[in-house]
Amino acid sequence: MISIHLEDGTVSVENIPCPSRPAGYALIRLLHAGICSTDLQLQRGYYGFAGTPGHEFVGEVTACDNVRWLGKKVVGEINLACGNCDFCAKGLGRHCLHRTVLGIVSHPGAFAEFLTLPEQNLHEIPPQVSPLDAVFTEPLAAACEILDQVSIPIGAPVAVLGDGKLGLLIAQVLQLHGAQVHLYGRHPEKMRLVSPLGIVSHLAASETPQPAYEFTVEATGSSAGLEQAVALTRPRGALVMKSTVHDKVSIDTAPVIVNEISLIGSRCGRFAPALDLLAQGKLILQPLIEDRFPLREAPGAFARAAEKGALKVLLDN
Amino acid sequence: MISIHLEDGTVSVENIPCPSRPAGYALIRLLHAGICSTDLQLQRGYYGFAGTPGHEFVGEVTACDNVRWLGKKVVGEINLACGNCDFCAKGLGRHCLHRTVLGIVSHPGAFAEFLTLPEQNLHEIPPQVSPLDAVFTEPLAAACEILDQVSIPIGAPVAVLGDGKLGLLIAQVLQLHGAQVHLYGRHPEKMRLVSPLGIVSHLAASETPQPAYEFTVEATGSSAGLEQAVALTRPRGALVMKSTVHDKVSIDTAPVIVNEISLIGSRCGRFAPALDLLAQGKLILQPLIEDRFPLREAPGAFARAAEKGALKVLLDN
Repeated sequence: MISIHLEDGTVSVENIPCPSRPAGYALIRLLHAGICSTDLQLQRGYYGFAGTPGHEFVGEVTACDNVRWLGKKVVGEINLACGNCDFCAKGLGRHCLHRTVLGIVSHPGAFAEFLTLPEQNLHEIPPQVSPLDAVFTEPLAAACEILDQVSIPIGAPVAVLGDGKLGLLIAQVLQLHGAQVHLYGRHPEKMRLVSPLGIVSHLAASETPQPAYEFTVEATGSSAGLEQAVALTRPRGALVMKSTVHDKVSIDTAPVIVNEISLIGSRCGRFAPALDLLAQGKLILQPLIEDRFPLREAPGAFARAAEKGALKVLLDN
Repeated sequence: MISIHLEDGTVSVENIPCPSRPAGYALIRLLHAGICSTDLQLQRGYYGFAGTPGHEFVGEVTACDNVRWLGKKVVGEINLACGNCDFCAKGLGRHCLHRTVLGIVSHPGAFAEFLTLPEQNLHEIPPQVSPLDAVFTEPLAAACEILDQVSIPIGAPVAVLGDGKLGLLIAQVLQLHGAQVHLYGRHPEKMRLVSPLGIVSHLAASETPQPAYEFTVEATGSSAGLEQAVALTRPRGALVMKSTVHDKVSIDTAPVIVNEISLIGSRCGRFAPALDLLAQGKLILQPLIEDRFPLREAPGAFARAAEKGALKVLLDN
């Protein structure tokens, strides 16, 4: 089968045997996969990664133990948990200390014709959700995670900083939750994509930040974003940190302490709320697809995804 | 009256008229005042401060509107709130957007023979509490603030980083709350002061930090402390930020996000829980007094307080 290999910054196309399927695992034929900023960071060599990347996918089960999965179109949670540690006992397999992670840590990823995942990680996509929407499930779950961590009242103004791939999903998830999202970005044409949902856009550079928001989400992907987000957050407010940046972030902690702001690190989320949201059919997703490539053209797809300002680039099998 | 003046880094002793007392305010004769790290930062010119510093005090009311205060030994909350904004409406006058702050922002401080404060800011010290213990009320309230912000279960292990003035108070407050405090510091002789309460000491430099704690408090006063505290905090844990440092803090945000740690800025607290704790008589406070000076020797007291490793320096009237 075709599989994408990433090593020392180079994306290559390999022909390797189909992966073997351990007991309890499903073999999944890829339909679509999304290239995430994390994949680009793996390419830049930030985590010493070598192997098959890819963790945003939708696929079809071709072999499994439990026949209910056979032939089903599925998405899959990316953390493979041990099931025995105290995080797993609390239902927090996403924080399992012994986890492997699809396409990121010690488990071959989704940029291949076939991949494997434990059956317990799978979710069938609702019948009314197209695979090209379902491919957004994983980043949508990461956006939904905010609502699992912070209680945001209906109608509350929320500032979302960053109009990239993740920022546009977060803005939609919070707006559909019932918050009044103010999206701060640098690209009016991107912010316009989500304005039909009633999201208010602000050009980040043109306004002096005021501590006006009780809830702020930082998703700029830049190391300057955190201080800008602090400046927008009211005393006793909550600031959700979504940007993983490689450089160290330099921050004046005085306003965080004086104003008693909570900075809340936020990563992966549960898939169930993301699938519920997809099933409602209100999300604006297809305009977020920047480009699509066949799997064997992954090197070009990675280059396209790395272009400044690019939104979601997909690989199709 | 004698009043201490701080301007351009210089501490001087002045003779000025006794302050006038607006309606609703009490005139308070100083008994003891404590020099805080914030006072030393004011001296270093960090906030463009010029005037009478001092916000940790115990005194005696010599004039007031409500006669119940007359002659009483009191401590006083340091934020003078407007009473009208939405923070005040929520009982959060400490975050009032229009506040002045005793000895810090636009209200003359406690390093003087007499000071004024609104009567509503006053708390009578319990009869069994000596003035030399009560002078710790304000920093104790800042330590108690942690328990208002984070729910720490009885018996939970908590890491406190920093064995300075504030760290030693925080360690005691959390230990007396019922947590199992592990104090990480660089001064065995200081950590030994609070060991009778059952606080476990660790030499910070000698151990590789492990993410072992669900609750961590950063009170090192150094810009390196935050990263060390993150390294001690378990996934989904809470890290309370207590150190106000002037320099920007450089931090790798990746572990905060990947492990979904909450960083909680924490500043002043309510005085009531601090006074309750003082009344119980279990705190170890007198060994934390490094030195005492008469008010008119404030310049020498500031120099003493600024010595590396100095604990609490008091000014007596």
